[in-house]
Amino acid sequence: MIVSALLTSVGINLGLCVLFVTLYSILGKQPSNVRVYAPRLVDKGEERPFNLERLLPSAGWLKKAWEPSEDELLSLAGLDAVVFMRIFIFSLRIFLIAGILGIFILLPINYLGKQLEDADFADIPNASLDLFSISNVGDRSKWLWIHFVSVYVITGSVCYLLYVEYKYIATKRLSYFLSSQPQPHHFTILVRGIPLKEGNDLSDVVENFFTKYHSSTYLSHQVVCRTAKLRNLIDNAKNLYRRLKQYNSRPHSQQKFDRVGSFVLFGKRVDPIDHYKKKLEDVEQNVRVEQSIVSQKGKEVPAAFVCFRTRYGAAVASCMQQSNNPTNWITEPAPEPHDVHWPFLSTNFQQRWFSKLVVIVASIFITVIFLIPVVFIQGLANLNQLETLFPFLQGVLSITFVSQVITGYLPSLILHLFLLAIPPIMKTFSSMQGYFSCNEIEKSACSKVLWFTIWNIFFANVFSGSALYQFNILLDPKYIPRRLAVAVPAQASFYISYVVTGWASLSSELTRIFPLIGDCFERHCSKKSVEEFDLPSIGYHKEIPKFLLVGLLGMTYFFLAPIILPFILGYYCLGYIIYRNQLLNVYSPKFETGGKFWPIVHNCTIFSLFVMQVIAVGIFGLKKIPLASSLTVPLPVLTLLFNEYCRKRFLPIFRAYSVESLITRDREDEKNMEMDQFYNKLVNAYRDPALLPIQFSKSEHGNTTPLLHSVEV
Amino acid sequence: MIVSALLTSVGINLGLCVLFVTLYSILGKQPSNVRVYAPRLVDKGEERPFNLERLLPSAGWLKKAWEPSEDELLSLAGLDAVVFMRIFIFSLRIFLIAGILGIFILLPINYLGKQLEDADFADIPNASLDLFSISNVGDRSKWLWIHFVSVYVITGSVCYLLYVEYKYIATKRLSYFLSSQPQPHHFTILVRGIPLKEGNDLSDVVENFFTKYHSSTYLSHQVVCRTAKLRNLIDNAKNLYRRLKQYNSRPHSQQKFDRVGSFVLFGKRVDPIDHYKKKLEDVEQNVRVEQSIVSQKGKEVPAAFVCFRTRYGAAVASCMQQSNNPTNWITEPAPEPHDVHWPFLSTNFQQRWFSKLVVIVASIFITVIFLIPVVFIQGLANLNQLETLFPFLQGVLSITFVSQVITGYLPSLILHLFLLAIPPIMKTFSSMQGYFSCNEIEKSACSKVLWFTIWNIFFANVFSGSALYQFNILLDPKYIPRRLAVAVPAQASFYISYVVTGWASLSSELTRIFPLIGDCFERHCSKKSVEEFDLPSIGYHKEIPKFLLVGLLGMTYFFLAPIILPFILGYYCLGYIIYRNQLLNVYSPKFETGGKFWPIVHNCTIFSLFVMQVIAVGIFGLKKIPLASSLTVPLPVLTLLFNEYCRKRFLPIFRAYSVESLITRDREDEKNMEMDQFYNKLVNAYRDPALLPIQFSKSEHGNTTPLLHSVEV
Repeated sequence: MIVSALLTSVGINLGLCVLFVTLYSILGKQPSNVRVYAPRLVDKGEERPFNLERLLPSAGWLKKAWEPSEDELLSLAGLDAVVFMRIFIFSLRIFLIAGILGIFILLPINYLGKQLEDADFADIPNASLDLFSISNVGDRSKWLWIHFVSVYVITGSVCYLLYVEYKYIATKRLSYFLSSQPQPHHFTILVRGIPLKEGNDLSDVVENFFTKYHSSTYLSHQVVCRTAKLRNLIDNAKNLYRRLKQYNSRPHSQQKFDRVGSFVLFGKRVDPIDHYKKKLEDVEQNVRVEQSIVSQKGKEVPAAFVCFRTRYGAAVASCMQQSNNPTNWITEPAPEPHDVHWPFLSTNFQQRWFSKLVVIVASIFITVIFLIPVVFIQGLANLNQLETLFPFLQGVLSITFVSQVITGYLPSLILHLFLLAIPPIMKTFSSMQGYFSCNEIEKSACSKVLWFTIWNIFFANVFSGSALYQFNILLDPKYIPRRLAVAVPAQASFYISYVVTGWASLSSELTRIFPLIGDCFERHCSKKSVEEFDLPSIGYHKEIPKFLLVGLLGMTYFFLAPIILPFILGYYCLGYIIYRNQLLNVYSPKFETGGKFWPIVHNCTIFSLFVMQVIAVGIFGLKKIPLASSLTVPLPVLTLLFNEYCRKRFLPIFRAYSVESLITRDREDEKNMEMDQFYNKLVNAYRDPALLPIQFSKSEHGNTTPLLHSVEV
Repeated sequence: MIVSALLTSVGINLGLCVLFVTLYSILGKQPSNVRVYAPRLVDKGEERPFNLERLLPSAGWLKKAWEPSEDELLSLAGLDAVVFMRIFIFSLRIFLIAGILGIFILLPINYLGKQLEDADFADIPNASLDLFSISNVGDRSKWLWIHFVSVYVITGSVCYLLYVEYKYIATKRLSYFLSSQPQPHHFTILVRGIPLKEGNDLSDVVENFFTKYHSSTYLSHQVVCRTAKLRNLIDNAKNLYRRLKQYNSRPHSQQKFDRVGSFVLFGKRVDPIDHYKKKLEDVEQNVRVEQSIVSQKGKEVPAAFVCFRTRYGAAVASCMQQSNNPTNWITEPAPEPHDVHWPFLSTNFQQRWFSKLVVIVASIFITVIFLIPVVFIQGLANLNQLETLFPFLQGVLSITFVSQVITGYLPSLILHLFLLAIPPIMKTFSSMQGYFSCNEIEKSACSKVLWFTIWNIFFANVFSGSALYQFNILLDPKYIPRRLAVAVPAQASFYISYVVTGWASLSSELTRIFPLIGDCFERHCSKKSVEEFDLPSIGYHKEIPKFLLVGLLGMTYFFLAPIILPFILGYYCLGYIIYRNQLLNVYSPKFETGGKFWPIVHNCTIFSLFVMQVIAVGIFGLKKIPLASSLTVPLPVLTLLFNEYCRKRFLPIFRAYSVESLITRDREDEKNMEMDQFYNKLVNAYRDPALLPIQFSKSEHGNTTPLLHSVEV
C-alpha cells in the first residue's frame, strides 16, 4: 500500500467519523430519541427541555462525558465500568511512550534506511508504506541497535504500567468490597451434588448437613427446582399480558371485535380484551398449579443456595472441600441473585460435561470456518493475486481510486463486519457451557472472543496473507520467530487500515444506528407498547477483545512500522470519550464482578509483549545481527517471570476476598442495626423468580412493568 | 537379538538372582548382620537365637515376608508402604490380563505371520525375536484387528483397575486419618511472609493477627529462627561427643596420650579424653550462648508455625487467603515435626525463587548430558554400528557368546548402573528447590526421576537407537505416532533384556551389598562407634520410578512384542516379595504422607496408556489398515477424559481432608480426656531442634543416643 492509499482510507474514515459524531450530536438532543441515547435518564424519569438549539450539532456531550470523575463513574456504572475505562487509560499511557519512541526516533531511522530504494522526499504520497518500516533498514545496520534498545525500553515500561495498573485495580476492588452495603451474594454459596438417600427430603438433607458442620454460621437455604416448564408458562403469560395492554391502550373504536383463533379469517368475532383476559387467567391458573407442584415435591434438583450469618462463614464453606467424596457437596460462591443463570442449575453432571465437549468442538469448528472470509479478504489486499484469479477485473482494478479503495479500505471493512457475528455466537456457546451466572458466561465469552480474534485476525491473516505457509512447518518452534519476522511486517499496511476503519466503527457505536432504527420501528409500526423497554447493558465480551486486539497490533508493530502508532493513539482517544459517554448515559450495569475482567486484559497484554519480543528475536536474526537476536531472548523469559510474579501477587485478590477483609466487614455488620432486616430478606433472595407469585390479570392494566417479578433485597 | 541371546541374558540374570537370594538367606541369618538385614528388629531390641541351621540357605524369609496382612503392614510400616506395595499388586493385575491376552492370543498370531520370513518351528533358538512381534504380521492382515481389539480391551481393563485402585487407596487414606491419634501436624499450619513493621516484635505480630482473625481456634505459635550457625555448632559438638565415646570404649592402655592439634606430629602429648571433654564443653558453651542470642532477638525469620485447638481451625486457616496482600501471611499445612526441612525456612522469597530457577536449569542440563551414555549404550546394542565404528573389534565380536553378552546383557547393565546416580542427584535438586518438608522433597524428586527416566530411558533410547532422528522433525505432532510406530518395536529386544537385568538388580536389593560392606568396614576398621546407627528408610523417589518405567514398557510392548510380558510378570512378583520383606525388616518409615505418592503412579499409568494408544494409531497406519488407525484415535481422548474424571473424583482427597472428616475427628477429641496433655505438648512440638537444650558432656558416656535431641509428642 502506498501513502496515498492510506490517506484515502484515513479520509473516508475521518469523514465517517465526523458524520456519525455530528449525527449523534443532533439526534442525541431530540427528546424522542432519549430512549436510544440516554435510556438511563429515562429510567430516572428526567426529561430534557426543548430548545431551538437542538437542531444544530454541538460538542456539549463531549464536555458532559469528560467531566465526571472516576468516583462518580464508579457510583453510576459500577466497578466493571471503571475497569473497562482503565483499559483506555492504560493503553493510552503505553502508546504515548511507544508513540514518542516510534515517531521521533524509529520512524526517521527507518525512512533514512537504504534497504528498499532511495527515499524521495518530494514523492512521499507515492512512497510505499514499507519505506517507513524496519524493512527499509539495511542488514547489519548499526541503527538496528536503536530498535533493540527500544524493545527493551517498551517492555520495561509496559511491565511497570501493568504492575501499577494491577495494583490500582486490586486496591479499587478491595475498597469497593469494604465500602459496599451487605449484599446477598457475599453471604451465600451455591451447593451442588447434594447426595440424596431415598426417602429423605432434599431440604432436610441440606439443613442437617450445614447445621452439623457449619452450625455457628449457617442461616438458611433454598433448594433449586426444575422450573423449565414453569418458565415457559410465565413467558406465555407475559406475552398475553403485553398484548392485553396494547389492546387497552388503543382508541376505543379500533379495539373491539377482532377475529381470534387459529383461523383468523373464519374465527368468531369476540371482544379481544375479554378473550385475552380469560386466556391470561387460564395461563395464570396453570402457572399457580405448576408452582405448587414444583414447590411441593419431586422437581427438586440436587442443588441449593445456602445462606450464612457472616461473609466469613460463606467464604469458608465455599473454599473448603465439604465431603469425603469430592463430587458431592460441591460448593462455590453464589452469584448476585439477579445474575443467576437458572436454566443450567437444573442440569446434571453428565449433561454439563457433554455440553462442554460440544462447545469445545463447536468453537474449533467456527475458528476453522472463519478462515474462509479471512483468506478472501487477503485476496483483496494482495491485488496481484486477485488479478491473477479474475483476469477480467484487470480493467476495473487499474483505476487508481478503485484499487486504492479495494486495497486500503474494503478488506478491513469486510473483516469488521464478519467479526460482528462472533461475539453473539461465542456468548451462546458460553451460556451452553454450564456456568451458573451471567457474569461467568460473559467472562468466558470474552476470553473466547479474544483468542478467536487474536488467532483469526492476527495470526491467520499474517500467515495467509504473506504466503499461505503450511501450518505443519509453522509448528516447529525453532522457526516461529523467523517466520513471524517475515510475515508480520508484510501486513503492516493492512493493520494500519484496520485500525483506521476502527475509528468509524467506534463512532457508529455513538450513533447506535441499529437500536435507533429498531426504536423508530417500534414506535411507529410495531404493536409493542412504547412504555416498556429493557435498559441496554454493555457487552464486555464484545468490546474488550476489540480493544485488546488493537493493543496487540500496536505492540507488535511499534518497532516494525511505527507509523501505525498515531492511528492507534487516535483510536484509544476516540474510544475513551465515546465509551465514557455511553457508560454514563446508555448502558446500565447488568452485574458486578468487582473488576474480574482485568486479569484477562493483563494476560492479553503479556501475550502481546511476548509476541512482540519473539518477532524481535526473528527480525534481528533476519537482519543478520545475531548478537541482538540472542540478547533479546532473555526478554520473553523475564516477561513470563514477571507475569508469574503478578499471578502470585494480584490474582488471588480477584479470586476471593481475604480473611482480613471478610472479618473486618463482618465486625462492622455486628454494629449494624439493620442486619436483622437484611437476614430476613436474605432468606428469600435466592428464590427462583419463576416461583414468585404471579398476578398479571388483577394488576392495573396501565402499569408499566409487572413489579412482582423483580426480586428486591 | 535372537532367542538364544535372550536366553543367555535370562540365564545370567537368573543365576545372579539365585546367587543373591541364597546369599541373603545365609547372610540374613547371621546375628552379626542383623544391623544390615533386620535393623528394625535391632531397634526393638529383639535378638535372633543362634542355631546350626543358619549356615544353610532356606526359604523361611519368604514365608515371613508373605504372611503379614495388609493391616499388619500398615501398622508396622505406615500407609506409604502399603501404597508402595499396591503398585506391585496393581501392576500384577494389569499384566496378568495383558499376559493372558498377549501370550495366548497375540504371540501365536505374530509368530504365524508371514511378513519377515517363514517361521521355522525347529529352529526357534536362532529365530529373531522380531518373529514374535507385530512386525511379523503382514500389511493389511485381518489378524491385526485382534491387536486392535486387544488394545481396546487392555485400555478398558487398565482404566477400570485404576479407578478401583484410586478408590481403594482414597478410602484407606480417609480411614487412616479417621483412626489416627491426634497428631501435631493436623493442628498446625506454617505461615510465611509475615509483614513486620519496624519496632514490633515478630511474635507479637503473629499473636495479634491470629487472635484477631482466628480467635476461636488459635492456640499458640512458634516463630522460626535463623539457626544455620547454631546447627553447625551442634554438629561440631556431636562429632566431638562421638569421638569422646570412641576413646572411652577403647582399651585403657591404648587411649592415653595421643598427640592432638593441627600439627599432629608436633602437638603436645595430652590425655585425649580430657582434651576432647574440654573442647566439647567449650563448644557446648558456644552453643548455649548462640541459642540464647537466637531465641532473644534479631535472628527471627518472618515465618512461624501456628497451632490451633482443632483440626478444622488449622485447615480453614491453611486454605484461605489471609491478607489483602496475597504475598503476606501465606499459609500452608505444616509437615510432621520431625519431617520439617529446617534449612529452607530461613531463606527469603528471592533466594527460593532463584534456587528454583537454578534447579530447573540444572535438571535440563543433566537430562542433556545423560544422552551421552544412552547413545553409547545404543551403539552396543546395534552391533553393526559398533563394528563400523571400531573395525578392530570385528574379531572379538564375531565370537557368538561375546556378541550375545554385548548385545543382550551389557547395554542394559550399563544403563542400570548409570541410572543409580540419578535419584541422589534429583533429590539434591529437590531439596534446593525450597520445600519445607522431607516428604515434599521426596515427592518432587520422585516426579523428577520419573520423567527423567521416561524421557531418557524410553524416548531417547527409542529414537537414538533406531535412527538418531532429528528432534525438530519429531516435534511435528502429526508424525509422532508414525515415528513411534517405527522406532518402538525396533527396540523390543533391548527392553526385554532391560527387564531381565532388572531381576538381578531387584535381588541385589535383598542382599544389600553396599550397606553390608559399609557395615563390615565400620565394625572392623572405622573408629565409628558400633552402637549408634541410623535406621535406613526406603527412598521412594528411587524405587517408584523404576517400577513405573517397567509398567510403561509392559504397556507399550504388550501388543507390539508380547514376549516381554512373562518377564515383566516375573519382575513384579520378585519385586513384591522382596520389597515386602525389606519394608517389614529393613526400612523404617521416615515420614507419613498418607498415600500422597499414588497420584504420581496414577498419572504415570495414564501416560503409559496414552503412549501405547498413540503407538497403536501409528502401527495400524503403517500396517495399512487406516480404518483401525482412525478407530483407535478416540481411545486416547477417552483415556484423558477418564483421567479428568479421576482428577475431580479422587485428587482433592489427597490434597486436603474434608470438612466432614475434620469435624468428625474434632468432635471425637472433645470427648478425649487426654487432649489437654496433647495441647501442652503441641505448643513445643515445632521448636527448632537446634534450640533444644544440649548436654552431651554431662550425659553418661555409654548412652547410645543423645536423647535430648529428639522431640517427642
